Amino acid sequence: MQIALLGGSGDIGEGIGLRIARDTNHEVIIGSRRTKKAEDAATDYRDTLSPNTDSPRIVGKSNDAAANDGDVVIICVPPKYVLDTVQAVRSNLEDNTIVVSPCVRMSRNETGFHHQPSDVGSVAEEIADILPDHVPVVGAFQNLAAGALTDLTRDLDLDVVVTGNDDEPKQRVRNLIEEIKGLRTCDAGALANSMEVESLTPHLINLSINNRDLHDLGVKFR
Amino acid sequence: MQIALLGGSGDIGEGIGLRIARDTNHEVIIGSRRTKKAEDAATDYRDTLSPNTDSPRIVGKSNDAAANDGDVVIICVPPKYVLDTVQAVRSNLEDNTIVVSPCVRMSRNETGFHHQPSDVGSVAEEIADILPDHVPVVGAFQNLAAGALTDLTRDLDLDVVVTGNDDEPKQRVRNLIEEIKGLRTCDAGALANSMEVESLTPHLINLSINNRDLHDLGVKFR
Repeated sequence: MQIALLGGSGDIGEGIGLRIARDTNHEVIIGSRRTKKAEDAATDYRDTLSPNTDSPRIVGKSNDAAANDGDVVIICVPPKYVLDTVQAVRSNLEDNTIVVSPCVRMSRNETGFHHQPSDVGSVAEEIADILPDHVPVVGAFQNLAAGALTDLTRDLDLDVVVTGNDDEPKQRVRNLIEEIKGLRTCDAGALANSMEVESLTPHLINLSINNRDLHDLGVKFR
Repeated sequence: MQIALLGGSGDIGEGIGLRIARDTNHEVIIGSRRTKKAEDAATDYRDTLSPNTDSPRIVGKSNDAAANDGDVVIICVPPKYVLDTVQAVRSNLEDNTIVVSPCVRMSRNETGFHHQPSDVGSVAEEIADILPDHVPVVGAFQNLAAGALTDLTRDLDLDVVVTGNDDEPKQRVRNLIEEIKGLRTCDAGALANSMEVESLTPHLINLSINNRDLHDLGVKFR
């Protein structure tokens, strides 16, 4: 498959892109608003991997072209740009394209980070609301820290919770994620259950802040 | 210390009570609105433990007496009775008593369980709001499944997230929890961060429902 990471030059895009390129045979397309920035990021990621990975399959394209070519399109832009980005590439998505939301909206106050639920509950559902019905949306990757993903020496041994209303695309995303070393997927049911997944992310950050021995942490259910 | 479990005849009270009585030297006081019910539960729990534990230190008392005697008072009643219970025992709490909230308020719809935040954010904060300032409240135990705690053959290897505004009582609760085999505590900061802890509980239930191999699950941060 071709895995497009819109906003893939950012840190979570880098982390997901590196892990997919290193551990699977799928092609990674780094998307950015500016093609040059995407191409530069792709070159960087290839250089990062090349000592240990044979010809890493990573290319850079505009977000539009990435959305067009991707079989799976992962929205890696910062929270405030998510809906504009999805709106902008909407017409480039083919019918069988799967859109994946690792997005979380948070606020910060004097005690720490807090989840900011939207009117519909989750960012994943907001994305689904502005996409045509024939484009399935799957929630995933929200609870992985970019710092853990980009540190390729780190063994993950973590869970990725997946939500979605359609079984087949959800299963395809689970298969993709489980090809990445150290990741297990868990099904949290319908897309409407994404809010609880998204609200775990500020909690993980609060735990990182308050515990000296926990950094860039993720979660394992047991 | 004397550890009082208000509503301790329920399943989460049973789980916490059994684990504390088995693994620590603290005395467990099972509280109930009816003293007889508390005494019967205490007898049951002693019987459960007695084959393997020397004279388990578990007694049954009214909630009022339990709140009065407890150095740590854990509110184990069902969500809808939490505030009434705290209100009722308020005058029985001594100045240095620590109140612990394992409480979570959830709703269920067609997709699964969802966190119901209160106006102030969390049940832990609601409890603190109706208690005098000199009674510290600590959030803990929200993400442990009663089924896992009561199954004494089960090795836990789980995290208990602790929140609270005062360091000393929070540390005392952490010490108590870490005496229970297989539990590690993590600090999530101020009591205001309890919402993210509480919202993890419906998520854990959704994962139990949707994954054949995950039952009575808890969480480990890593």
